[in-house]
Amino acid sequence: MPEPVLLPLADTPPAERRDAARNRVALLEAAERLVAAHGVAGVTMDAVAHEAGVGKGTVFRRFESREGLMAALLNHSETEWQAAVISGPPPLGPGADPWDRLLAFGRSRLETTIVHAELIRAAGRASTRSTAAYSFIAMHVRYLLAELGVTGDLQLLAIALLAPLEAPILDQVELDGIPVDRVYAGWVDLASRIVGQGR
Amino acid sequence: MPEPVLLPLADTPPAERRDAARNRVALLEAAERLVAAHGVAGVTMDAVAHEAGVGKGTVFRRFESREGLMAALLNHSETEWQAAVISGPPPLGPGADPWDRLLAFGRSRLETTIVHAELIRAAGRASTRSTAAYSFIAMHVRYLLAELGVTGDLQLLAIALLAPLEAPILDQVELDGIPVDRVYAGWVDLASRIVGQGR
Repeated sequence: MPEPVLLPLADTPPAERRDAARNRVALLEAAERLVAAHGVAGVTMDAVAHEAGVGKGTVFRRFESREGLMAALLNHSETEWQAAVISGPPPLGPGADPWDRLLAFGRSRLETTIVHAELIRAAGRASTRSTAAYSFIAMHVRYLLAELGVTGDLQLLAIALLAPLEAPILDQVELDGIPVDRVYAGWVDLASRIVGQGR
Repeated sequence: MPEPVLLPLADTPPAERRDAARNRVALLEAAERLVAAHGVAGVTMDAVAHEAGVGKGTVFRRFESREGLMAALLNHSETEWQAAVISGPPPLGPGADPWDRLLAFGRSRLETTIVHAELIRAAGRASTRSTAAYSFIAMHVRYLLAELGVTGDLQLLAIALLAPLEAPILDQVELDGIPVDRVYAGWVDLASRIVGQGR
């Protein structure tokens, strides 16, 4: 079937801008694969260009510097994580029991925070502390607490529940050296206390 | 009785330095009285000089700028608050039931944080984020949790209990407009959940 010829809509970006966006995502996905394989330290402008099969100049044109790439990667990763919470498979996404969703959230957020803390350090001045990201997380936890029938100041309880999963706090307790499983076990205990006994 | 003449000890500061330290404290105490009477906005270099009965030049020599004064005031206030926790009257200081001490700690920390948040803003670039101050607080809460017979990852539980009392978090929930009593009531509920039922 031939592709239908559509009149351009007011909010459809021109083909050129769509291509640019697609190329940008391709570069970020290449960078993500490098993070997964070699850690944040392994992500250089050269390695991203090689992984994405483009010239190094293209990577510099898109992100200006390694710091710029790191900041973009942070943003991209946060957006993907939010999508997984909103519409991904359970138990992180919808459809599971709220207690199971809360536990999946805690584990996933803890792991995300550890990677993001490295990205934030690598992004240096290019990184912007995102209050929007925190708002999303706090809103999600409040929603789950309400689903679990918890009463009280859910906003304050959510803040308490989130604190041990946050990067500046994890830095302060010097996570390096403390196994993630130990932090997670402590967090599950905290969640049980806040949600109520019998969990 | 005449003052005994003592041989100077190696770590006794010369009279000149002791005078300087005394004058510095006198200026900080004058600034504290102004904060209590008129809030942080009411503390100008002129007002501090007038309150302490010295020339404006003296205040500038000690603190360089209003920002410098605010940073010094923050440090002085934190030290005084720590002294009240370590050796002040109960229930904030030693001698009260650990649960009463925990509640007094929460109320006092919440009020201190609100004043300090203003000082941090006023200190601008002169303010240094103090991890030492946080370590003291976390250590104190862990001690009280242990006294209350709480078991588990006390470090993590302390982080959760402290989070709703911390300035960056209070900024994020936009405390302005939310009465302190409401935040405190929510925090007491959180503390009851973490310490255990029957409180």
